[in-house]
Amino acid sequence: MSLLTVGSVAFDALETPFGKTDKIIGGAATYITLAASYFTKQNNLVAVVGGDFPKEMIGLLEEHGVSTEGLEVKQDGKTFFWSGKYHADMNTRDTLETQLNVMADFDPVIPKSYQGTEFLMLGNTVPATQKLVIERMAQRPKLIMLDTMNLWMNIALEDLHAVLKLVDVLTINDEEARQLSGEYSLRKAAVKIMGMGPKTLIIKKGEHGALLFQEDRIFFAPALPLEEVFDPTGAGDSFAGGFIGYLASTDDISFENMKRAIIYGSAMASFCVEKFGTERLVNLTEAEIKDRVQQFVNLSSFEIR
Amino acid sequence: MSLLTVGSVAFDALETPFGKTDKIIGGAATYITLAASYFTKQNNLVAVVGGDFPKEMIGLLEEHGVSTEGLEVKQDGKTFFWSGKYHADMNTRDTLETQLNVMADFDPVIPKSYQGTEFLMLGNTVPATQKLVIERMAQRPKLIMLDTMNLWMNIALEDLHAVLKLVDVLTINDEEARQLSGEYSLRKAAVKIMGMGPKTLIIKKGEHGALLFQEDRIFFAPALPLEEVFDPTGAGDSFAGGFIGYLASTDDISFENMKRAIIYGSAMASFCVEKFGTERLVNLTEAEIKDRVQQFVNLSSFEIR
Repeated sequence: MSLLTVGSVAFDALETPFGKTDKIIGGAATYITLAASYFTKQNNLVAVVGGDFPKEMIGLLEEHGVSTEGLEVKQDGKTFFWSGKYHADMNTRDTLETQLNVMADFDPVIPKSYQGTEFLMLGNTVPATQKLVIERMAQRPKLIMLDTMNLWMNIALEDLHAVLKLVDVLTINDEEARQLSGEYSLRKAAVKIMGMGPKTLIIKKGEHGALLFQEDRIFFAPALPLEEVFDPTGAGDSFAGGFIGYLASTDDISFENMKRAIIYGSAMASFCVEKFGTERLVNLTEAEIKDRVQQFVNLSSFEIR
Repeated sequence: MSLLTVGSVAFDALETPFGKTDKIIGGAATYITLAASYFTKQNNLVAVVGGDFPKEMIGLLEEHGVSTEGLEVKQDGKTFFWSGKYHADMNTRDTLETQLNVMADFDPVIPKSYQGTEFLMLGNTVPATQKLVIERMAQRPKLIMLDTMNLWMNIALEDLHAVLKLVDVLTINDEEARQLSGEYSLRKAAVKIMGMGPKTLIIKKGEHGALLFQEDRIFFAPALPLEEVFDPTGAGDSFAGGFIGYLASTDDISFENMKRAIIYGSAMASFCVEKFGTERLVNLTEAEIKDRVQQFVNLSSFEIR
């Protein structure tokens, strides 16, 4: 089945305890489509960049089977830019600079050829824009997944609630789940958030794994303990891309298959953090992914007698 | 097989966001032996209390099959007392007061009837005292497990290293693993710590589960997402007690069985935190434990196709 991802394609400048980058390619939709490309072959992208965005990178996305028909290039504009610095624990970071640039008035146009896409992934961006995308789909996708962040809870909560009513799967991190629900217990938080619209909730806990909630079912996927976390940027988006890419490729949205999808998503996130930016995500092999997923099986399987 | 636990039996006074207690019964060895009592029937205790320690509590331990022959009562002394206050996140706490009292010169005497015990659990206490216990065992137990804390890394590191050389399993939390090894990555930390003596390392991550390391094998056990964590005191000790109690009851120290033991330990910890102090641990049924372990199976099982 086909996947449509809407979100940012951007420049990032990063500083981690392991080093510093100049402007490198980032953005939620970049990580999502790259991660999903290892699963689904119909990988559609709606995003906007400026004239400063390198053509080679667009070519690289296309090489990964990503359709860039929906990637608008505003020749006289500048690409969205974010720079951040990670703390020693790699779980927290400070934003040093955000330049919205062409994202400031992102008006997502869905190409005709994308209409009918079965799986829709709304990367983290302005909630009103995410809602607009859903409204612009001629028929409702089979599954709509949304990522968001604390910023929108602070400055656009009403819009966020409006779009939450329309989606099937929400992914947020643990602190955001607590903020959105006003509950400290993630189990209580999940019940409240699922009451806001999404029937399925994924709470990402970074190096502590991820929780999948649906009705009264809970599944926990560990994160792989890595020798080194080099750069956490894009981990959550790679996770989302692996998750929805796997769902789209199998066309199975049962809870059992979502459990598998979370493991694939976690595997993609574990690759992502091993190098700066998208470096590790752009040249994975099927054998590497299979081997990594097997590591998750080994890590978490046990048998009660 | 039989288990010997050496450690503190104490009074605690606790403050959590959910309430406050007066002096209640606590201490590492109390939680360990109570948790282990659901698995092993030969449950030996070496500890010291003062004349102020309630006889009913000693009776309660005995009702749970704990042998108190090795529980020294110093009639003219006072029982070890600790009071602490948990922060809102329940993962961190401040010590308000510590009165060592009779623990200040704890001289663990191993009753003759305890000699030959196959499984030895050294609860968190002065490393030199832990080493003394090992030296006082006429024959080396089949498995020696040790719990410790950051305090001893700060004030008795040399003694800690000396006893670490003698044990099979070490349990510490993630921050302590980082402190002891000087490595941030838990995977790297584990390799260094296993080089200090213990062939098996358990890193406890509280609400984020636990990692089991042995040679190049890793197993991760999630913590159960609970509606409410009422009082985290004793969770780590209940975990250790369930773990070693299960190992002793099955007399199987293979890695596969340790994985099961970690799940049983995690189940005991999940019960412990549901009420203040030992309240929940003292009246569990086999059916409750079986049901809780099944929840762990449901939480973490998946199948890759």
